[in-house]
Amino acid sequence: MLYLGPETRLSSLIIEPTHSLIRQSTHSREREEPLNGDGFGIGWYATDHSTEPAVFRSITPAWNNRNLQNLARVVASDCVLAHVRAATQSSGVNEANCHPFRWRQYLCMHNGDVGDFRAVRRKLLASVCDEAFGNVYGSTDSEHFFALFIDSLLGSDETDPALRMARALARAITRTLELVHSAGHGSASYLNVAIADGDCAVVSRFTDDADGVPESLYYFTGELYPIVQAKGRPRVERGQPVTVSSERLTADPGWTEVPAGQIIILRRDRAPAFIDARTGEMRSAPAAARKAS
Amino acid sequence: MLYLGPETRLSSLIIEPTHSLIRQSTHSREREEPLNGDGFGIGWYATDHSTEPAVFRSITPAWNNRNLQNLARVVASDCVLAHVRAATQSSGVNEANCHPFRWRQYLCMHNGDVGDFRAVRRKLLASVCDEAFGNVYGSTDSEHFFALFIDSLLGSDETDPALRMARALARAITRTLELVHSAGHGSASYLNVAIADGDCAVVSRFTDDADGVPESLYYFTGELYPIVQAKGRPRVERGQPVTVSSERLTADPGWTEVPAGQIIILRRDRAPAFIDARTGEMRSAPAAARKAS
Amino acid sequence: MLYLGPETRLSSLIIEPTHSLIRQSTHSREREEPLNGDGFGIGWYATDHSTEPAVFRSITPAWNNRNLQNLARVVASDCVLAHVRAATQSSGVNEANCHPFRWRQYLCMHNGDVGDFRAVRRKLLASVCDEAFGNVYGSTDSEHFFALFIDSLLGSDETDPALRMARALARAITRTLELVHSAGHGSASYLNVAIADGDCAVVSRFTDDADGVPESLYYFTGELYPIVQAKGRPRVERGQPVTVSSERLTADPGWTEVPAGQIIILRRDRAPAFIDARTGEMRSAPAAARKAS
Amino acid sequence: MLYLGPETRLSSLIIEPTHSLIRQSTHSREREEPLNGDGFGIGWYATDHSTEPAVFRSITPAWNNRNLQNLARVVASDCVLAHVRAATQSSGVNEANCHPFRWRQYLCMHNGDVGDFRAVRRKLLASVCDEAFGNVYGSTDSEHFFALFIDSLLGSDETDPALRMARALARAITRTLELVHSAGHGSASYLNVAIADGDCAVVSRFTDDADGVPESLYYFTGELYPIVQAKGRPRVERGQPVTVSSERLTADPGWTEVPAGQIIILRRDRAPAFIDARTGEMRSAPAAARKAS
Repeated sequence: MLYLGPETRLSSLIIEPTHSLIRQSTHSREREEPLNGDGFGIGWYATDHSTEPAVFRSITPAWNNRNLQNLARVVASDCVLAHVRAATQSSGVNEANCHPFRWRQYLCMHNGDVGDFRAVRRKLLASVCDEAFGNVYGSTDSEHFFALFIDSLLGSDETDPALRMARALARAITRTLELVHSAGHGSASYLNVAIADGDCAVVSRFTDDADGVPESLYYFTGELYPIVQAKGRPRVERGQPVTVSSERLTADPGWTEVPAGQIIILRRDRAPAFIDARTGEMRSAPAAARKAS
Repeated sequence: MLYLGPETRLSSLIIEPTHSLIRQSTHSREREEPLNGDGFGIGWYATDHSTEPAVFRSITPAWNNRNLQNLARVVASDCVLAHVRAATQSSGVNEANCHPFRWRQYLCMHNGDVGDFRAVRRKLLASVCDEAFGNVYGSTDSEHFFALFIDSLLGSDETDPALRMARALARAITRTLELVHSAGHGSASYLNVAIADGDCAVVSRFTDDADGVPESLYYFTGELYPIVQAKGRPRVERGQPVTVSSERLTADPGWTEVPAGQIIILRRDRAPAFIDARTGEMRSAPAAARKAS
Repeated sequence: MLYLGPETRLSSLIIEPTHSLIRQSTHSREREEPLNGDGFGIGWYATDHSTEPAVFRSITPAWNNRNLQNLARVVASDCVLAHVRAATQSSGVNEANCHPFRWRQYLCMHNGDVGDFRAVRRKLLASVCDEAFGNVYGSTDSEHFFALFIDSLLGSDETDPALRMARALARAITRTLELVHSAGHGSASYLNVAIADGDCAVVSRFTDDADGVPESLYYFTGELYPIVQAKGRPRVERGQPVTVSSERLTADPGWTEVPAGQIIILRRDRAPAFIDARTGEMRSAPAAARKAS
Repeated sequence: MLYLGPETRLSSLIIEPTHSLIRQSTHSREREEPLNGDGFGIGWYATDHSTEPAVFRSITPAWNNRNLQNLARVVASDCVLAHVRAATQSSGVNEANCHPFRWRQYLCMHNGDVGDFRAVRRKLLASVCDEAFGNVYGSTDSEHFFALFIDSLLGSDETDPALRMARALARAITRTLELVHSAGHGSASYLNVAIADGDCAVVSRFTDDADGVPESLYYFTGELYPIVQAKGRPRVERGQPVTVSSERLTADPGWTEVPAGQIIILRRDRAPAFIDARTGEMRSAPAAARKAS
């Protein structure tokens, strides 16, 4: 799940909702296997964005981690990412393999698989610049995908930060498909990927599987959680908060599916926008997003 | 180490000082054994004090913990406790045994030993109320001492919060000595104990060892670290920040020893005060404290 | 699960069976909640029984622990205990709270609850001898029950080791019920407890719940796993191996329920025997056990 | 440390010696920094060598790990490797980065550095076969060096297993120097590397530093520890046990330095032999080794 909006406590986001991430760690509903018990991670930005974001990751399950409960009760932020992991057989459970991954001010997390990853890994690594290569510390397909994103971002001349991120994400998806095509054995990729820089965020919902149904992904525009209001500080009105999550966190009817094959673009001061996850072309804002803004 | 003052980043307190707690985890100077590698813990209060404090504890050493570095870089607080542990043989290394310990809004940490603890433990537990008993989750002498404090605090009719804490701490020290006297074999106790409630804090420097030299303890009144200034929020002037630490964190000449046998009382709006660690009687402010205020 | 028989690899016991303990850590079948992901532990005896048994415990789930898989592949033993944990809310996830617990040559593990444990704990601790008290390091009802067993064993004058263990277990169950009756609020206890000393073992299946149905417990007499045959060492024929488990590990029809309210007694050289879990009186061997011997 | 000889308890090797590995984890003597507290690992072979070796690794320090103490007390083996880690800044503390590393029946551990590793890593990975590449799960220079060894071993046509390992190790050292020369910035490498297959083992002591002094390395031929004698099993006399260690484990005068620039070859049925760490050429047995055999 990813949140962008006014400052709120982490517990409001990841512990208190009916179908919170903690709950999803044992009872996720939209996956074949309901268990996400192979560690977890959260990332968040300091209120003044004066420093790189924090990442807190652990190899123990989210549901019984006291440090997570303690942190979440006290820490507040205006941009939060949280992830519970179900590890694939091939990659070990250690902190380097827990999401979110960080590079400079960017945080990245992934739900899905890079098709035939073991066969693709070498060629993928060979294709990225030293900076992107040097940021790979573990053995997950997700962190390797992030290296493709970093490389694509560094090679981009787009100037708008949110669009630059969105297009680099689209480019990384295209490059992944090409790599799997040339080095893999025909497996499909599932690429629901969330990337934030603290001010804006992009999230893809994508698969090239024959049936065309990616992993689930929803967004909600509007207030779901209590806002932390600093004493004596004027409330900054900068548009509505947005939450994106693999599963709906509440029973609220306002949750909307991110369309398959799209990347949702979140900015603090406007309604969500969408671009095509492969071509990077802007889509006219869908009805749901228009309604919510 | 314990900090009470305007909001500052945790990294300013526990990572950046020359002789920081991280440094003390491998190279403490004022102990026979320089190593404090059996886990660590930090506790801090939310800026608005609207919720119980956070505790983050780990059984891995402080010096290589990425989560600690991440947290410390981003999180800021106006009351922080941090502890690196050197476990005694008898008690295991697990999170329940890491300091600080928490009860309601109080955080507690300890440097030293309860004399003959294994022999004293049963009688100690039998002497406290259910509330205090029920807060013991691990097997350290430190957490058991905290139960004595809780019991003494609940039994106190003192109304000033800081004095109430200080007198409960003095009472817990006296009760410890009585317990060791009646159930132990004559070993000395070392009771440097720090307790905070977010608004004020008390720290004892005490031993009943024949030579009368307790573990080291210093305090510093004044700014050591960059203050985090929330944008648009007026700086609250509420006295000077105070730092208390087992070892001097910097080469600054302003560090002063806490006198042996005393409890130092820290409040946001006045200079440090002292009471006798056994009798609980107020001492006239020592020269050093007067100078600093 | 508990195994007593000729030497076999741990992986044969805890990883390879169709419905192995690893499988039960995510998909247990005879509990309301299928998840046992709050750590695990294994205990085993050296082949020559020349030293106290090993215990390997971890707070990470059994299903993804590489150390467990490595150990299990290589280590063989003739007496093995293994446990996957579903923690109750009140007691933390740390190694001191993982089963099996050890005291001298004894290992103990528990599936169930001591009724109203938080209310009963103080009185329980007050009722045991120093030796039993001193062996409590964590905060689980299970480890406290083990202290009752230790105290009962030390107070027993029974000379046959297996009977001594069985009667101490029955005595600990009776004492638990008395404590819950006097200090608790009327909740039922569930006391499926396995205790071994390397040469023999006892396992209770008990509840005082009104409906009289304890947690599930099965045993199997006969070879389920490949025996490790040391080269050049004659096969010692000392009766049949026995496996006891909360859930049947295989589809083999030979699994038999341990009768409710009974303690099963396992020895290397005879068929399983049973005593009443409260009175400690010997029961005539049930049909199933007779068939299997 | 590495042991090859008759079966002995792990505790005899890693806990009981005066200057044991546990001791070296806090007080190593022949390094600038006495601390090796960034995790540890042990590897050992099943007595009948019927399965791949076990590896038990942890990110907590060796000195306080209860699982290690438990395991070591009970487990016995005839080939054991043990390692305490002092992590370099650039690579994280997680289990994938703890030694020993395993591939098939081989275990590998390393004391030292690959010069300019961050700059060399990509070229190194590009130079090895898929099998070697696919065995890299972490981010240490040591595991990457092991990939060079695997690649060299797979490319070797040497038939004697011990010589094949020794020459592959020499080849991996030469390849490392070439890689650092072409992709690095002139830093020296320190390559004390131990590799075993259960039946034999090879250990290099090497640096290309200008002063020519590699990290310390000693070996001891003869019994240092109690041998575990299986009941009724005839003692197999297959030459003397050998222990190799970065620091002398005991005050015994029989410890001999491994000559700088050499690889020591250990076999069960003969005295240690030596080859040149770069050329792979056999050296006539040195005086010390002759004396000891």
